[in-house]
Amino acid sequence: MAASARFSGVFAPVIMPFGPDLSVDADRLARQCRWLLSQGVGLAVFGTNSEANSLSVGEKSDLLQRLIEAGIDPERMMPGTGACAIPDAVELTRQAVRRGCGGVLMLPPFYYKGVSDEGLFRYYAEVIERVGSRELRIYLYHIPPVAQVGLSIELIGRLVHAYPQVIAGIKDSSGDWDNTAALLNENWDNFRVFAGSETFLLRTLRAGGAGCISATANINPAAIDRLYREWQSDSADAQQQSLNDLRDLLQMHPMIAALKSVVAHFTDDPQWTEVRPPLMPLAGDKRSLLLDELFNLGFEMAGLAE
Amino acid sequence: MAASARFSGVFAPVIMPFGPDLSVDADRLARQCRWLLSQGVGLAVFGTNSEANSLSVGEKSDLLQRLIEAGIDPERMMPGTGACAIPDAVELTRQAVRRGCGGVLMLPPFYYKGVSDEGLFRYYAEVIERVGSRELRIYLYHIPPVAQVGLSIELIGRLVHAYPQVIAGIKDSSGDWDNTAALLNENWDNFRVFAGSETFLLRTLRAGGAGCISATANINPAAIDRLYREWQSDSADAQQQSLNDLRDLLQMHPMIAALKSVVAHFTDDPQWTEVRPPLMPLAGDKRSLLLDELFNLGFEMAGLAE
Repeated sequence: MAASARFSGVFAPVIMPFGPDLSVDADRLARQCRWLLSQGVGLAVFGTNSEANSLSVGEKSDLLQRLIEAGIDPERMMPGTGACAIPDAVELTRQAVRRGCGGVLMLPPFYYKGVSDEGLFRYYAEVIERVGSRELRIYLYHIPPVAQVGLSIELIGRLVHAYPQVIAGIKDSSGDWDNTAALLNENWDNFRVFAGSETFLLRTLRAGGAGCISATANINPAAIDRLYREWQSDSADAQQQSLNDLRDLLQMHPMIAALKSVVAHFTDDPQWTEVRPPLMPLAGDKRSLLLDELFNLGFEMAGLAE
Repeated sequence: MAASARFSGVFAPVIMPFGPDLSVDADRLARQCRWLLSQGVGLAVFGTNSEANSLSVGEKSDLLQRLIEAGIDPERMMPGTGACAIPDAVELTRQAVRRGCGGVLMLPPFYYKGVSDEGLFRYYAEVIERVGSRELRIYLYHIPPVAQVGLSIELIGRLVHAYPQVIAGIKDSSGDWDNTAALLNENWDNFRVFAGSETFLLRTLRAGGAGCISATANINPAAIDRLYREWQSDSADAQQQSLNDLRDLLQMHPMIAALKSVVAHFTDDPQWTEVRPPLMPLAGDKRSLLLDELFNLGFEMAGLAE
């Protein structure tokens, strides 16, 4: 991928494995990344569903290095590097660029509420100027249900025009199709709009979008990637419906704990169920229920490494 | 202060001075801390109004060291050490204990929303166990309007009973008097309830509370401390009303920018107006308006160091 290339396709916010002492587990993470790549999806490491905000900057830095040393292709990585504090965002973003990551996914600062578009513009501008690299590609991360601080279309347009080489796209996790449609309607040059889940994948692609970045790509990558590749085929609507059926099951539970339970089951590796507080693992009865429902749907995780 | 002592009185979440390049300014901060101590209030450094969540862990660590080297008494300090990531909270809390701080003010992890009391309990328990010090005194920080993640009375009670030596009190910034009253009604042994602003100072003291931790103590420390000392006097209600009048003026503006404008004016030091994005300094016309209103109220900041 050339330095000026931009992402498209399906990305997974890779779930984060922890040891019994809650330490990060680079080996299990590399294994999961390798499997996801083999299934055709890219790696949005350090996303919301990666518990990225439960990790220190140092832990994320070390993990990025370990993944690359383990042979994971940085050009297929879109690490999350947004943070409440500018120095943290700069450090992580700078490192991602230096290590050749194809792009970064950047949350707005999310502690202070009711902040202005001008303040958010200055935050992104400050990070961009400090990183100061022509290789930098930022995918903005709009997720108001969690961050509470969102990115207005006016703000995004201002960033696109101020930094046309850097602001490469957005992940829209608003859950609001009208917002995604409005972003697509702006038609900014080569601006990549990713749906925040596969629920809107087909609509996004039909409206000229780039793909999706979705939690469930952690367990269902090949099927989501197939719809991305075959969205113009006759089977596209049926494929979308099938993706929705699976996602509906998952969404009955806290997403991160549910995904980890599924991966733990199919890799026969219970250590995968660990989460960092304040998140909680899925209780045993809920886990059984979820796995039963997935079985009834005929769901399998295929080709798991090791 | 003995290791087992607990705080009472008035604390200021000390506003954070930045250089023109947005770097933290330890010298100006030490000066402000020294003045606040001279006015009778304690130092809740790294609070919400200190822009603590716009600082990296490394910046906060360095500042704490610099303040103590500058002769600021750590026993009068209640640094904010809560963070989204457990390793960050542990690092800052451990350092505060090692440096002899009288207590720490601890936010819950605030990125993930809709988390359970059990998950929040495990977060605090994990931090307490890892720090593992008999000297640790935690003041919980309940500020749902900003953090969105709040602390229920059931959760607080569970923490108090699990860690009676460690959980020393709470800052209640809910803005909801009923919640503060309910906390006071629990009557946990030696548990210190601080109002989140001086608006509720008199009510809090009359109901058995310990004081307040308030943004406006950055500019009005002596008067707030006077009400703390004289709350049983005949003038108490008039004093409270006078504090409210000043606060009402401040609250017409974004608080942090307003406080910095006032300090910049009375110290004749415009560098104080700097904030880190996503916050914005007060616009010139709003600053003039605020200063005019304060003048009409007869407000002065007295005895400023240097």
